[in-house]
Amino acid sequence: MILGGDGFCGWPTSLHLSNIGHEIVIIDNLSRRKIDVELAVDSLTPITSIHNRLAAWKAITNKQIKFYEFDLAEEYYLLLETIKTEQPDIIVHFAEQRSAPYSTKSERNKRYTVNNNLTATHNVLCAIVDSGLDIYLIHLGSIGVYGYHTTKMQIPEGYLTVQVAARDGTSVQQEILYPFDTESIYHMTKAQDQMFFHYYNRNNSIRITDLHQGNVWGTQTQETRLDERLINRFDYDGVYGTVLNRFIIQAAVGYPLTVYGSGGQTRAFIHIQDTVRCIELAVNNPPPKGAKVQIFNQTTQTHRIKELAETMANIVKGTKINYIENPRGGIEDSENDFFVAKECFPALGLNPILLERGLIDEVSEIASKYRHRCDHSKILPPNWT
Amino acid sequence: MILGGDGFCGWPTSLHLSNIGHEIVIIDNLSRRKIDVELAVDSLTPITSIHNRLAAWKAITNKQIKFYEFDLAEEYYLLLETIKTEQPDIIVHFAEQRSAPYSTKSERNKRYTVNNNLTATHNVLCAIVDSGLDIYLIHLGSIGVYGYHTTKMQIPEGYLTVQVAARDGTSVQQEILYPFDTESIYHMTKAQDQMFFHYYNRNNSIRITDLHQGNVWGTQTQETRLDERLINRFDYDGVYGTVLNRFIIQAAVGYPLTVYGSGGQTRAFIHIQDTVRCIELAVNNPPPKGAKVQIFNQTTQTHRIKELAETMANIVKGTKINYIENPRGGIEDSENDFFVAKECFPALGLNPILLERGLIDEVSEIASKYRHRCDHSKILPPNWT
Repeated sequence: MILGGDGFCGWPTSLHLSNIGHEIVIIDNLSRRKIDVELAVDSLTPITSIHNRLAAWKAITNKQIKFYEFDLAEEYYLLLETIKTEQPDIIVHFAEQRSAPYSTKSERNKRYTVNNNLTATHNVLCAIVDSGLDIYLIHLGSIGVYGYHTTKMQIPEGYLTVQVAARDGTSVQQEILYPFDTESIYHMTKAQDQMFFHYYNRNNSIRITDLHQGNVWGTQTQETRLDERLINRFDYDGVYGTVLNRFIIQAAVGYPLTVYGSGGQTRAFIHIQDTVRCIELAVNNPPPKGAKVQIFNQTTQTHRIKELAETMANIVKGTKINYIENPRGGIEDSENDFFVAKECFPALGLNPILLERGLIDEVSEIASKYRHRCDHSKILPPNWT
Repeated sequence: MILGGDGFCGWPTSLHLSNIGHEIVIIDNLSRRKIDVELAVDSLTPITSIHNRLAAWKAITNKQIKFYEFDLAEEYYLLLETIKTEQPDIIVHFAEQRSAPYSTKSERNKRYTVNNNLTATHNVLCAIVDSGLDIYLIHLGSIGVYGYHTTKMQIPEGYLTVQVAARDGTSVQQEILYPFDTESIYHMTKAQDQMFFHYYNRNNSIRITDLHQGNVWGTQTQETRLDERLINRFDYDGVYGTVLNRFIIQAAVGYPLTVYGSGGQTRAFIHIQDTVRCIELAVNNPPPKGAKVQIFNQTTQTHRIKELAETMANIVKGTKINYIENPRGGIEDSENDFFVAKECFPALGLNPILLERGLIDEVSEIASKYRHRCDHSKILPPNWT
């Protein structure tokens, strides 16, 4: 069962898991498409309706994916009933509002993000307990829960070992959840989700894997490439478009690459094809019953934003770089290193797609092909403040 | 502005702050009284309606307390409007569902507690930002966010200093929020509230004090004693009644004291009169603008449950002790020490009321006087599982 299975990560994950033989049920309220309407933007790629997507998948592969359209934050009893009817072995939960800029735009967006994300996650956990079924939950978290700061230590995969002074003057070693320090309302909800997982894992023995994912780039996967009706979304706007997607479209339309501030911010990245592989690896490697929440960092590379802009300018000759005032100034550090552990997935067999190679494909396969669909007025961050 | 100002802690706090000269506005949706209806229980003490309470306070002291009845989790814009109209300097936030057993009773109670508590807290923070006013927020947290486990270290007041291994082989010292480990949905929401506070303090420079309060016992304060119409509530039932209140009423009606499990659980306590004094101290000692969230442990004593039962049996001769199966077995540790720092409030001038002395007053002043109002069938924990 894929919650949010029509979204940017959910859709290619649904296809991939279906392709390798899993029976797939999607629940989605289509909120991401509706926010496009609200923001008056559209995917650069011409995504078709979920119904056309599923019909095309059936036509091409003869595999059936079932679809329920409802809001799982609003409709608890329908969620519970659907779980009881479908009896999933595994639930993959992508159903959260995922744009940091969107989440801090206004009090309405703050409150929507908090209410939607926290209620959705809590409803899923409640419904798993209530169903009486032994369901394994995989959740898409965010690497942003750690905070983007330069640290003298390596950021671990979820858990940190610390020494604490004991009452008797000795020192005690303890394993703790890495202390959160989030820079947006969106990231805050992912940190709060961790508390739900800790509680329900401990009190109801639910098996949970939480995936702290980096910035996702790229568009297509092995399955979404099979037919244009299966194409994945590509967000290039200043709200949902992540930094690499914005650079890709800017280079393709001959617009200078807009770097926020000095570009000294280091961020973690992963290609959408690797996201899909990571979910498959998480599906195949649940934590044992009774074990604590399993946390993996789902990222393959870290880069400074400035380096990415330079890489991009090298790929598309003639591209200029434009350093603009950071719309997130005062919230994020203007420069940071980001030393983050990412050994779990390679140890399970992930062989990552590297930016240096994949970016070229992305420019030729997506940005050049669909650049006529680009609304240039949407590339810059909106002036919301 | 007192959110939840009709409740067990909110009501005596409202009266006390009014008495010492503050202008007070209460917002309350009367949810605590409505849950009494739902559970078919009633306060042992004959509390009058909020309207009668406020009229009595006016008649006795000539001080006016304003009252708004609405649900601040549901009515964001009314909350914002009320804040803009009343222009409070300080908001004291008690408006959360506060029973751990209630919060874990069923999926409806879990979801109500999560939605109500998190939305209420987030709405208050959003509305403070949105109002543009420089409002100091005092929040009633819970000492249960630390988890009731035996620890080799002393539990600090909010922040813990830890040593972490650095990448270069050295060790780094860091101050972190004490790692949460909560035993109920209710306590979990208080831990999640801390994340809201951290974010809004850091991003919007809101001054915040979070008070991690222990089990509150006692009923009356200096102000609620002035007239029977001002009397505070006394919950003795198995859901909202805290352990000491249950012992007090059991001793008064000649019922054996019901100790859950071995009674080896150590808990932290504070008298309601000291709660009120602590809020006054927090009001007078805001953190400086730009400082991190200020966290105080609001508790004065720790005791094992078994010791409390023995103390009670000594006060009311002939009282028996009945060890029953722990309805929270499997969730809480059957035995624990609880070494918790509690120096901040004494340093600000708190001179606590000790259990050994106050319990006798409580039995004679409240339990004996109102024992005819006790429904014996409600004393034991309900069989919810």
